[in-house]
Amino acid sequence: MSTSSPVTPTLAAELTRWRRDFHRHPELGFCEFRTAAIVAATLEKLGWQVAVGAEVMRAEARMEVPPAAEIAAARAEALRDGADPAWVARLGDGLTGVVASLDTGRPGPTVAFRVDLDALPVLENTEAAHLPVRENFTSTRPGRMHACGHDGHTAIGLGVASVLPALAKNWRGKIKLIFQPAEEGCRGAKSMVAAGVLADVDHYFATHLGISLNETGAVACGTDHILATTKLDATFRGVAAHAGVDPHVGRNALLAAATATVQLHAIARHGAGASRINVGRLEGGTGRNIIADHAVLKLEVRGETTPICAWMAVEAERVLRAAATMHGVEITVENMGEAGNAPCDPAARAVVRRAAEKSGASHIVEFSPLGGSEDATLMMDAVQARGGQATYLLVGTPLPAGHHHPRFDIDEAALPNAVALHAAIAEELLS
Amino acid sequence: MSTSSPVTPTLAAELTRWRRDFHRHPELGFCEFRTAAIVAATLEKLGWQVAVGAEVMRAEARMEVPPAAEIAAARAEALRDGADPAWVARLGDGLTGVVASLDTGRPGPTVAFRVDLDALPVLENTEAAHLPVRENFTSTRPGRMHACGHDGHTAIGLGVASVLPALAKNWRGKIKLIFQPAEEGCRGAKSMVAAGVLADVDHYFATHLGISLNETGAVACGTDHILATTKLDATFRGVAAHAGVDPHVGRNALLAAATATVQLHAIARHGAGASRINVGRLEGGTGRNIIADHAVLKLEVRGETTPICAWMAVEAERVLRAAATMHGVEITVENMGEAGNAPCDPAARAVVRRAAEKSGASHIVEFSPLGGSEDATLMMDAVQARGGQATYLLVGTPLPAGHHHPRFDIDEAALPNAVALHAAIAEELLS
Amino acid sequence: MSTSSPVTPTLAAELTRWRRDFHRHPELGFCEFRTAAIVAATLEKLGWQVAVGAEVMRAEARMEVPPAAEIAAARAEALRDGADPAWVARLGDGLTGVVASLDTGRPGPTVAFRVDLDALPVLENTEAAHLPVRENFTSTRPGRMHACGHDGHTAIGLGVASVLPALAKNWRGKIKLIFQPAEEGCRGAKSMVAAGVLADVDHYFATHLGISLNETGAVACGTDHILATTKLDATFRGVAAHAGVDPHVGRNALLAAATATVQLHAIARHGAGASRINVGRLEGGTGRNIIADHAVLKLEVRGETTPICAWMAVEAERVLRAAATMHGVEITVENMGEAGNAPCDPAARAVVRRAAEKSGASHIVEFSPLGGSEDATLMMDAVQARGGQATYLLVGTPLPAGHHHPRFDIDEAALPNAVALHAAIAEELLS
Amino acid sequence: MSTSSPVTPTLAAELTRWRRDFHRHPELGFCEFRTAAIVAATLEKLGWQVAVGAEVMRAEARMEVPPAAEIAAARAEALRDGADPAWVARLGDGLTGVVASLDTGRPGPTVAFRVDLDALPVLENTEAAHLPVRENFTSTRPGRMHACGHDGHTAIGLGVASVLPALAKNWRGKIKLIFQPAEEGCRGAKSMVAAGVLADVDHYFATHLGISLNETGAVACGTDHILATTKLDATFRGVAAHAGVDPHVGRNALLAAATATVQLHAIARHGAGASRINVGRLEGGTGRNIIADHAVLKLEVRGETTPICAWMAVEAERVLRAAATMHGVEITVENMGEAGNAPCDPAARAVVRRAAEKSGASHIVEFSPLGGSEDATLMMDAVQARGGQATYLLVGTPLPAGHHHPRFDIDEAALPNAVALHAAIAEELLS
Repeated sequence: MSTSSPVTPTLAAELTRWRRDFHRHPELGFCEFRTAAIVAATLEKLGWQVAVGAEVMRAEARMEVPPAAEIAAARAEALRDGADPAWVARLGDGLTGVVASLDTGRPGPTVAFRVDLDALPVLENTEAAHLPVRENFTSTRPGRMHACGHDGHTAIGLGVASVLPALAKNWRGKIKLIFQPAEEGCRGAKSMVAAGVLADVDHYFATHLGISLNETGAVACGTDHILATTKLDATFRGVAAHAGVDPHVGRNALLAAATATVQLHAIARHGAGASRINVGRLEGGTGRNIIADHAVLKLEVRGETTPICAWMAVEAERVLRAAATMHGVEITVENMGEAGNAPCDPAARAVVRRAAEKSGASHIVEFSPLGGSEDATLMMDAVQARGGQATYLLVGTPLPAGHHHPRFDIDEAALPNAVALHAAIAEELLS
Repeated sequence: MSTSSPVTPTLAAELTRWRRDFHRHPELGFCEFRTAAIVAATLEKLGWQVAVGAEVMRAEARMEVPPAAEIAAARAEALRDGADPAWVARLGDGLTGVVASLDTGRPGPTVAFRVDLDALPVLENTEAAHLPVRENFTSTRPGRMHACGHDGHTAIGLGVASVLPALAKNWRGKIKLIFQPAEEGCRGAKSMVAAGVLADVDHYFATHLGISLNETGAVACGTDHILATTKLDATFRGVAAHAGVDPHVGRNALLAAATATVQLHAIARHGAGASRINVGRLEGGTGRNIIADHAVLKLEVRGETTPICAWMAVEAERVLRAAATMHGVEITVENMGEAGNAPCDPAARAVVRRAAEKSGASHIVEFSPLGGSEDATLMMDAVQARGGQATYLLVGTPLPAGHHHPRFDIDEAALPNAVALHAAIAEELLS
Repeated sequence: MSTSSPVTPTLAAELTRWRRDFHRHPELGFCEFRTAAIVAATLEKLGWQVAVGAEVMRAEARMEVPPAAEIAAARAEALRDGADPAWVARLGDGLTGVVASLDTGRPGPTVAFRVDLDALPVLENTEAAHLPVRENFTSTRPGRMHACGHDGHTAIGLGVASVLPALAKNWRGKIKLIFQPAEEGCRGAKSMVAAGVLADVDHYFATHLGISLNETGAVACGTDHILATTKLDATFRGVAAHAGVDPHVGRNALLAAATATVQLHAIARHGAGASRINVGRLEGGTGRNIIADHAVLKLEVRGETTPICAWMAVEAERVLRAAATMHGVEITVENMGEAGNAPCDPAARAVVRRAAEKSGASHIVEFSPLGGSEDATLMMDAVQARGGQATYLLVGTPLPAGHHHPRFDIDEAALPNAVALHAAIAEELLS
Repeated sequence: MSTSSPVTPTLAAELTRWRRDFHRHPELGFCEFRTAAIVAATLEKLGWQVAVGAEVMRAEARMEVPPAAEIAAARAEALRDGADPAWVARLGDGLTGVVASLDTGRPGPTVAFRVDLDALPVLENTEAAHLPVRENFTSTRPGRMHACGHDGHTAIGLGVASVLPALAKNWRGKIKLIFQPAEEGCRGAKSMVAAGVLADVDHYFATHLGISLNETGAVACGTDHILATTKLDATFRGVAAHAGVDPHVGRNALLAAATATVQLHAIARHGAGASRINVGRLEGGTGRNIIADHAVLKLEVRGETTPICAWMAVEAERVLRAAATMHGVEITVENMGEAGNAPCDPAARAVVRRAAEKSGASHIVEFSPLGGSEDATLMMDAVQARGGQATYLLVGTPLPAGHHHPRFDIDEAALPNAVALHAAIAEELLS
């Protein structure tokens, strides 16, 4: 961090406090009521113009929305844990996005930073080797965890919101902070794009901690190996029967689902680039003495390019349908999420490089692989489609365990680095 | 039914009323609070000496007891649906067995009839072709159903309890009515045997409606093709990882479970007699973009003889463990239930034959295949081990759909037939 | 064996000599040139009227005929091993059946005995514990073995042919000895039925050594648990590709075949009786670095009843086709053999019982299970269809290892027993 | 091709003639008797010093040598097809490598060019769209085909041998032409390295036609995405049994092999780079009614880096062994070939670039992906280990179908381009 960093020691401490509070209260996609309410309230207090809920998300463009009962339970939980009822009310039934704007009043471009809010269905590790255990800020919600660093992202977003109003006094143009729900599963970005949140953005920066950049102080101006992805749910319906008396009368939906699971993983590797397949969830059957009449798979495919991803999706659907046919059961396959692999623009990367140099980054790389999928790519697409520039950058942090792992953690020293970097990016473009 | 039947038209109507009430309120194994409370109260009113709960079951000999929360919810539901709180209190935490005794005071043998109480986790059919729909007595508890006829069994047990006190006035010996919980899964009988319920029984009769005897009025004096069974739970534990970034770092418990599921069904048929295998339930993984770190299988094997069943269990366990090794994950395998294939004694079958003739059976066969498994066999073992006689008999009824099927139903005309048959059996042995 | 046995010590020694000679020279189905030539020559010398080749088989009704090159090689081998060229010439291209007739000239019924000639593609055991090793008569043809006792059957047939001409001097009616090729796989009987060999048969007896009757001296008058069977070949055709460069361009026929193999074995057990499935042979692919573009499966299904077998065939074909679809490859499925489960007639069984008593059997049972399939059933069908009587009987022998096993062997003392039994059967019906 | 090309129209015609002759007579690895004999004779006639057989290969370092009978048959076939018996005799039992040297007599570096000789077990396409059909030079050996372009490589090698003697008159140093057998499967290079063929090489160039460079006239100075590879054979041994009578007594080696095949393809993709797995060949079982007691798999794994390849090999071996355990059969796993992923040296690539420019290449790229594996990498390793420079270059040609495909073909105009390029490379280094 350069000596000119806008991050005061007080703000640095606040960043850690925010991050740990979010870490303690992880919320799954479209259920980020407490997180979004805190974000909205804080932004408003800092002088930003705040829009939430239906103002910034088109409800029907969300993918894989949880059942109403789950959303209601999440809202109740958020209120119980101190979320401001007025803000929660404005978040509707799972419209948990927040957009804050700061208009200098002077003509100029619009710069957007994207922050994601959601946690994962992972049971956090409880061993002393895990820092959140030692420092007493593990998840209070068993089975959910900020295991991808979005708690840190949200804290960074609030940090950026804290420093920019003062810095922007003499700037031109406009700044937007986009807090997106449901990044995990690539389910939320589409609804914000559909609501027009990106329609005026000229320069777009999505940021992630860690991934393949594992040194505090390092910055990657762009990422490659962003994987395009498609998310699918497959529901098998068979016929129940007594497993002792009439096994041949049944139509075994669980056996079809298990067959599909094995065979999906056996889809050929693609010669033209990386591909991925994962069946992450299977539930089927009722009692052990009944031939199972239903089973549900949740899966995803990915590809280094959009065509590879599309090829995988075609293969996967054929395997799923053939597994159903093989066992004489019915199947429905639904698309539950998707993202592309938007390339990072050279101009946007150049801005990040200059800002990284200015903000005192210890190590700067042009590209670092992302490996996973991201629906920020849908926002990048939208910005690039209107002639804007976009990149997906990384802020370095060592990781004691991989993303989505029960012992995932970050180096909190990366948080002020990230705030300083974002401020410098805005300064590059708007001062 | 012969003209001399002890079943009056009033009792016949009551049998139907009882059966339909139980059908409307199906309760799963070890959760039969309402059913057992009604049974106990009715028996007491009819003059029987009633023992319940810990008096007739050894708690730790139960197999696959539901979680405490589920039992508590079932008890609350039973109370809400009108069960007598005093009797419910005596049923403890899932000790839902009832034993009624009628002692003539004169020396003589002890005759026991066994009735099972529990329903199945099946979602009942709602089409008009299904009689309970037309007659308005379908299950009021979605996802649970009396799809094996135990509602009829319980009604028969109460009918037998209604007629025997008057008939037995001049008999000798003793009668026991054993109402067993958790027959499905072969989980409850062991605890009643362990509590000594069978220790004084000389003649034992377990009865089932339908199965392979599908003509009202018919009686099978014994069953063959009783399948021995072993119930297993297998829990796989792997390592979670991000499915896009680090798939090779994960250890996929769900893929291991799916592999096991397919391969278990591919265990060789046994040349010496019928064998069965069913994975009835699989649940694994969390989110679709996480390599699944856990999965649970519920399965069972069966064999026409106890050695065939044992062979299947050995094969199944080897397949399970190899599937775990194949995918580099941990596994634990637990025994959750079992039953043997006790043969039906010729002397007991002869008693049934004479009683069937006397009670006006339209058709009598020596044996009819059972096909499934039954933990009544554990009670038969106990009786035969002390030199007693036992058989497993069938009372005929047509079936619109097989046992455990969502459209399973019985011909209620079989209920008075069964009561008359049981009365005649008791008369054969005790008058 | 009773003292009145027609089997002299000299003949008994000859039986062993024949059996061991055939054991040394095993020939696969439709390739039994040497065996059939020896049988024909011997029968002719004994005074029987001998018909072979196209006289007793309809060529196009054979199932799964080996390739022409294989038949030619087998013929060459037979000639090299001393088969009479004149008889070999009459056996055509794999018409290796022989029928011998003995007409008493007096009106009366026709009695037929069926003998099977072929060996199996099994590599014989070479350990000293294996009697053929110690006694030096193991297979001289690596990879082929008489592992089902047909060498003994053929010797028995020649023994029966030896004793009957003298015994039948004063009998009436006619005797036919039917030496059938290609019983393994249920491939040969159909062609002899189609050629009319059974058209005049009133009493039909097919015989097997061992199976479930494992005591020398014992006789089973009939068999139950004869399994109906259907034999299938499945050919998968995909697209080759370089496994390193373009794996996604290939269509993997071998993976489809492997998938089918696993899934076929996972077809549900049938609740109404025994079922069987076996993929006995799989060959697919060329080099390890090429995605395999072809694969062939040889499989069979069986059922305790013809409907169960038919159900299995339907399931198997669905699994095969779905496996092809799953992997995007083409498939053809061909029927390569079949047999029913003809019941054994009471009258025929009674004849066997009386003959067994007369010939000194030590132990006689009405039924003993067959377990496997047999295309003798097609001959039984033909005889029963014209009002004749048929049974499938067993002659007891202990077995050091199961049928088709590399250490399979018989007790040669069973051979004279069988000859005496057959002579007594003929005497029962024709004297 | 520049006007200064050393390839005369006569030589260009000769290149096509050679290539088509080799195409007509494809020979598999370690069986290239005819090809090697023609190469050796031609080189000798052109004035090169020729070494063959045991002089240039260490026999025991060959991997996956064909059975002796196959090698003998190939030799007989080569002689029948006109190969010079004297040269064939010197090629021993499958030592079919040839090394030609040209020493200028002046001190200087040694430059080596590597050519591979072998064909593939692919059945060539016979449709008119396939140029070898129209021009009448398809494979005369059914089931074998030059489907990877090595026929072209060999022709190029002879072309280079034709032009260099004249050009090298005033050069310094030494030139070696290394004709390697058994490149397919990465089986032959190791034996030439072990024989010391590379011990004096300073500059090493291996060349391939096509692959990812599909424009005639183009040159790639190096390749990336060379995949490291390990080749494995797995042999499963079970217990045979009669599939109808005793299926449970068998131990199914074929089912184990099929399970392994499916599960091997389901090994997780590696997050750090490309991985590959292919089971290219499976053969198991004998007859359809016998539980298969043996099965053999031929497979390979590959990785973008040597560690990824090693990880795949560990995973594959675990899957193989677990599949055996799962089905209760024995297994042996053997290493049949391997190659690394040696990087292409910048200095060597610079030489190729200058030579490509000089020889008139229409398009030059620094790297083009290889995708597959190559045991030229073992030669590169050897050269680099002694401080030499090596690269793996591509000569462009359009491909009507992918490598190893039955319709694979090249543009023969690429042959003179390649000869000119090689001459220019030698000139760069030795003139």
